[in-house]
Amino acid sequence: MTANASALAMVLEDFSKPLVPTQYPIPEPEPGAVLAQVTAAGICGSDLDITGGLDPRIELPLIVGHEGVGRVIATGGDKRDMFGELLQPGDKIVWHRAVTCGRCYYCAVKRQASLCMYRKVYGITLPCADPPHFNGCYAEVLYVRPQSEILKLPDNVDEAILVSATCSGATAAHAIELADVQIGDTVVVLGPGPLGIYCAAFAMERGASQVITFGTRDDLARMKLAEAFGCTSVNIHAVDAAERKQMVLDMTHGIGPDVVIDAAGTRHTVPEAIDLAARGGTVSVVGVAVPQGETPIAIYEDISLKNLRLQGVWVSDARHMYQAVQLALSGKYPMAEMVTHRLPLQEANEALAALERREGMKIVLTPQ
Amino acid sequence: MTANASALAMVLEDFSKPLVPTQYPIPEPEPGAVLAQVTAAGICGSDLDITGGLDPRIELPLIVGHEGVGRVIATGGDKRDMFGELLQPGDKIVWHRAVTCGRCYYCAVKRQASLCMYRKVYGITLPCADPPHFNGCYAEVLYVRPQSEILKLPDNVDEAILVSATCSGATAAHAIELADVQIGDTVVVLGPGPLGIYCAAFAMERGASQVITFGTRDDLARMKLAEAFGCTSVNIHAVDAAERKQMVLDMTHGIGPDVVIDAAGTRHTVPEAIDLAARGGTVSVVGVAVPQGETPIAIYEDISLKNLRLQGVWVSDARHMYQAVQLALSGKYPMAEMVTHRLPLQEANEALAALERREGMKIVLTPQ
Amino acid sequence: MTANASALAMVLEDFSKPLVPTQYPIPEPEPGAVLAQVTAAGICGSDLDITGGLDPRIELPLIVGHEGVGRVIATGGDKRDMFGELLQPGDKIVWHRAVTCGRCYYCAVKRQASLCMYRKVYGITLPCADPPHFNGCYAEVLYVRPQSEILKLPDNVDEAILVSATCSGATAAHAIELADVQIGDTVVVLGPGPLGIYCAAFAMERGASQVITFGTRDDLARMKLAEAFGCTSVNIHAVDAAERKQMVLDMTHGIGPDVVIDAAGTRHTVPEAIDLAARGGTVSVVGVAVPQGETPIAIYEDISLKNLRLQGVWVSDARHMYQAVQLALSGKYPMAEMVTHRLPLQEANEALAALERREGMKIVLTPQ
Amino acid sequence: MTANASALAMVLEDFSKPLVPTQYPIPEPEPGAVLAQVTAAGICGSDLDITGGLDPRIELPLIVGHEGVGRVIATGGDKRDMFGELLQPGDKIVWHRAVTCGRCYYCAVKRQASLCMYRKVYGITLPCADPPHFNGCYAEVLYVRPQSEILKLPDNVDEAILVSATCSGATAAHAIELADVQIGDTVVVLGPGPLGIYCAAFAMERGASQVITFGTRDDLARMKLAEAFGCTSVNIHAVDAAERKQMVLDMTHGIGPDVVIDAAGTRHTVPEAIDLAARGGTVSVVGVAVPQGETPIAIYEDISLKNLRLQGVWVSDARHMYQAVQLALSGKYPMAEMVTHRLPLQEANEALAALERREGMKIVLTPQ
Repeated sequence: MTANASALAMVLEDFSKPLVPTQYPIPEPEPGAVLAQVTAAGICGSDLDITGGLDPRIELPLIVGHEGVGRVIATGGDKRDMFGELLQPGDKIVWHRAVTCGRCYYCAVKRQASLCMYRKVYGITLPCADPPHFNGCYAEVLYVRPQSEILKLPDNVDEAILVSATCSGATAAHAIELADVQIGDTVVVLGPGPLGIYCAAFAMERGASQVITFGTRDDLARMKLAEAFGCTSVNIHAVDAAERKQMVLDMTHGIGPDVVIDAAGTRHTVPEAIDLAARGGTVSVVGVAVPQGETPIAIYEDISLKNLRLQGVWVSDARHMYQAVQLALSGKYPMAEMVTHRLPLQEANEALAALERREGMKIVLTPQ
Repeated sequence: MTANASALAMVLEDFSKPLVPTQYPIPEPEPGAVLAQVTAAGICGSDLDITGGLDPRIELPLIVGHEGVGRVIATGGDKRDMFGELLQPGDKIVWHRAVTCGRCYYCAVKRQASLCMYRKVYGITLPCADPPHFNGCYAEVLYVRPQSEILKLPDNVDEAILVSATCSGATAAHAIELADVQIGDTVVVLGPGPLGIYCAAFAMERGASQVITFGTRDDLARMKLAEAFGCTSVNIHAVDAAERKQMVLDMTHGIGPDVVIDAAGTRHTVPEAIDLAARGGTVSVVGVAVPQGETPIAIYEDISLKNLRLQGVWVSDARHMYQAVQLALSGKYPMAEMVTHRLPLQEANEALAALERREGMKIVLTPQ
Repeated sequence: MTANASALAMVLEDFSKPLVPTQYPIPEPEPGAVLAQVTAAGICGSDLDITGGLDPRIELPLIVGHEGVGRVIATGGDKRDMFGELLQPGDKIVWHRAVTCGRCYYCAVKRQASLCMYRKVYGITLPCADPPHFNGCYAEVLYVRPQSEILKLPDNVDEAILVSATCSGATAAHAIELADVQIGDTVVVLGPGPLGIYCAAFAMERGASQVITFGTRDDLARMKLAEAFGCTSVNIHAVDAAERKQMVLDMTHGIGPDVVIDAAGTRHTVPEAIDLAARGGTVSVVGVAVPQGETPIAIYEDISLKNLRLQGVWVSDARHMYQAVQLALSGKYPMAEMVTHRLPLQEANEALAALERREGMKIVLTPQ
Repeated sequence: MTANASALAMVLEDFSKPLVPTQYPIPEPEPGAVLAQVTAAGICGSDLDITGGLDPRIELPLIVGHEGVGRVIATGGDKRDMFGELLQPGDKIVWHRAVTCGRCYYCAVKRQASLCMYRKVYGITLPCADPPHFNGCYAEVLYVRPQSEILKLPDNVDEAILVSATCSGATAAHAIELADVQIGDTVVVLGPGPLGIYCAAFAMERGASQVITFGTRDDLARMKLAEAFGCTSVNIHAVDAAERKQMVLDMTHGIGPDVVIDAAGTRHTVPEAIDLAARGGTVSVVGVAVPQGETPIAIYEDISLKNLRLQGVWVSDARHMYQAVQLALSGKYPMAEMVTHRLPLQEANEALAALERREGMKIVLTPQ
């Protein structure tokens, strides 16, 4: 992007209609803010809920896109990253996708900034009608607010690889933090999408000695990637419920997995997750993002007698984003293979359509 | 009890029939075992499930009673308590109600002895047909096995006060351990029986700044006791669900309680427990001891969006028994008021009938 | 205070010289800031280090005083407290004594805001030469910055009781958080000043079954107060080191205390703290605030063989302030007895002199 | 070994004298005990302290050797491993090197079996004068007591690789448990022996994003192995203290390592460990096994101001042994390269001499 007076954004004006290419004037950053060039914007599964009108929080018009990585164009005065490093134009950076207050009961007392009373998210709960307009990542620039946590990246990093870290990766880090995986544990992950793959990797990072992922016949490529990450994978359309339970029991001396992370994004898998888990174990439900009715739970058999922990995981905070970025940068896992599509910003509508067809693993827009 | 050749036990020979007074020969303690005089045996709510045949684990004949406190009659060789103190005849002692192996995956690796693969419980899963017979606390003596953890008590303690500590108190300690109450938290306890009262006391011991107990119109005396422990109490037949939710919100700046402990012993209260809890909070279900069907849970609204932890709590281990005994001995709470009935051993059937009529708080048998 | 154009502050212009009464113009609060009337300002032991020039962080001139409670005079726009309650003129409030960034590695990743890279403290590291001047609590007003966490208080609270909560109380909460006291533990606290008393109270709040405080012959009144809080107290000038160790062993079945909190503020007591602690225990050192040379530690006997945790505790964050305020408001402990002197603001120099003579427990300035 | 009436052991009869080959009668296992063929026995650094008379706990005569792996010869009745699997003659097994009571305050209340009041260790605190004699691993057989935790191994495992897991590996697991490494942390390990290498691997297992090991010019081969495990290594004789501190700061954005594990086995490295650690960090001292005088610590600068945790680590329990075995079996790390020497049992004296010359990494005796 050159120093234009305006920049391109792909704007959701009506639900279930194509995003509209729109030029907005480029804002000056206020003190503490950063004007960032978006060099990679991830298409997240939840973007389909947003464009389809299923997410009740959305106010239009909206620049979609909450997963972004980019470069500094300008800063409002001296601006430093989380480590106190001064940011300069051209620096590659990643920012926390949510803006939190840092001072409320949840932020300051409970240390759960993911539940901040005033949480706003780029591309979701920050509409674009008013200046600074650039509040979502499907755009050439993002206006990164003063409250946003920023991390400077090495110059040689491929930004596309990091977009998953900002959302799925961070939320997986949160799920693992709440699941309390122990060294030597067995972990089962339901749903081998970007969120599930990150959960699997983090489970290994916390010392799981074996991680097993369950996917469907539509997930074969994803399961192959899970295997490349070190998982054992199971196609639930090839191995029925009784067989796969027995398989997991056989792999755990008859005990069952210590932790089951349900990253399938639907309530329908929760009963199997509970049934699989060992006594004293944990089932983490992560990635259920829209209302979908009720699931019957047998309080005695499923919860009490099992001494089970059923843990809901809602989004993530800057700590988790940091951890996911560290993981992606570590080189321990084949993160690059997760990025299956790179498209120009102008093709955002095609990107969403490809996601809807469940093509690939991670589709990234790469505005230039 | 004098040094008889035999001693009395109240034996369950058939479900739903009165216990039968039976004399068994007094055994010699093997090395590491202790022959204890039972000076106080608690009637636990679950004893009704056991005598009524609702607990599928029971093998007959059985000396009922898993809550006991007593005195040393004889030891098998030198025997020491948990602190290494040598036990002498006449010493007052309390023992862990379960016999666990200490060596299996749950005991040694997971440090969850409450889930020991070989766990046996006096008065529940140790029938009495064979020697040493005295495997339950509704008896003049108990044969305390070498593996049982034992704690010597001060001479001046009233044993009746401690019987609740061995079961409800220990299980409450476990619930609180898993709930991770923080200083300044608000805790709601559903069900003000002995288990709920102990949960309330332990919540205060972990720093809860306010504890609110919900009971029914049948619990008025129990709620009064809860107030004497320092709780605010609510009669759910006098304050409807919407009102009591608002009341709790008003007491928590609109946040809701950080922890809700459902000690009502039924699945039916779980939805209210979940509805009350703050985002990021915990609902502990403790005391659900028999199968009772399914409860619908909205995975998105109840679990995910709330970032809720739903934690099942199954029984307890020696650590928890120790903590409950310490609490009871501390004198901080009016534990003595919990003991509303003291009856001789021979009146065990009357004691069970009184419990079934929901009379009093804690009924204790006091064999002489 | 009426709506004057200026207000009084007691200013440190030179080290070891009396504070100088000074009028500064009252500032307008910027957006998010609060102009507060200081109704109670605590004299902290560290204020003597500050006025005496022992604290290397101090830049002059300085309005001393980091412990403050007050009332809202005006807010910069709509301003809410930690629970989202809108602040109105006249509301009683307490604020966190430190200003932290909320975004750096320590704040956002490590969740240790007490180590924030940009931490500033009213009355310590915020000098008063430039507007808004009112950066310390020995003054009629304090300019509470937008980043400061604020908690609205009940109207009927005695502010003087809360000043200790903002510093000693908060730091004690931090010490207890890091010490991980368990239910049933025995805790020894060295040094029964406001910090030690709060440590003792928080130890009880975390379930300690007995708390023992050690003081000197100069601490007799403080030890009496510790007893009123529920502690056993020991005068180390009346009971020699061997005797008091034996006494603690006798109270702990020969095990020793699980946690020793050294709140004496000097390195000289650390060896005794280590010697007292049980194997597997923790020694927390809190309140050592100035350089004072080295202490020999036997790594094998003191640390390794004992499996000891020696934990340094540096200041506190808003979470701890919240917990201390909740404790003070709970009414469980005779907090009011801690406040032994109330003096007008103009007598700040006399207050410091009284503290230097070790008079009383907590001296509070009460500007009108 | 065939079914002989006697078997060979290498016995320490006098300190600093060669071990004496001795035949003892092979015992019958009592109920719950296992007679095991020792197929691999590790030479531990502490064995030199033991044979040299530096360890005050030793009673002679002693069969040295606390690190062992082997095969079942016979069991006393039905005997199961930690997962409930029935043990059969020929099964490969590993056992916990210590015998703990499972019932004392440390075992049952504190869940710190490593501090069990009655802890005994094969090859250290179990002399061999009396039957069953076979109480150490420098022997053809070991009498594994009923209280010992046992884990059945896969048939195809190379036992020599696992001997380090039973001692260094387990103790490293304990160190990591107490150090609380977080995802994304930087960890420095001082001393790249088997203990240090295991600490490094476990740090990575808990999510450390970088692990740096410091060694001496005598450790070049060990440092190479550390690099093969994924560490960055530093030769402290090639990089002076100021340079290596700067290097670590450069790798951590100027923050310093979150955790420093001092596995050098001497008090002399502790000041550097403390100096390196980040504020809010942890220094774990593991492997200091003999008295060695005092180290000066500056309580203000080193402990308080740094908010540092200095954590002593004493031995380990069965949970840690399990974790170390899982790690060794996982195949994630080149554990086999740790085993540099395999010698027959009869060459135990030569093995000890080689260790004293600091040859190789891990020397294993392989009785046939």
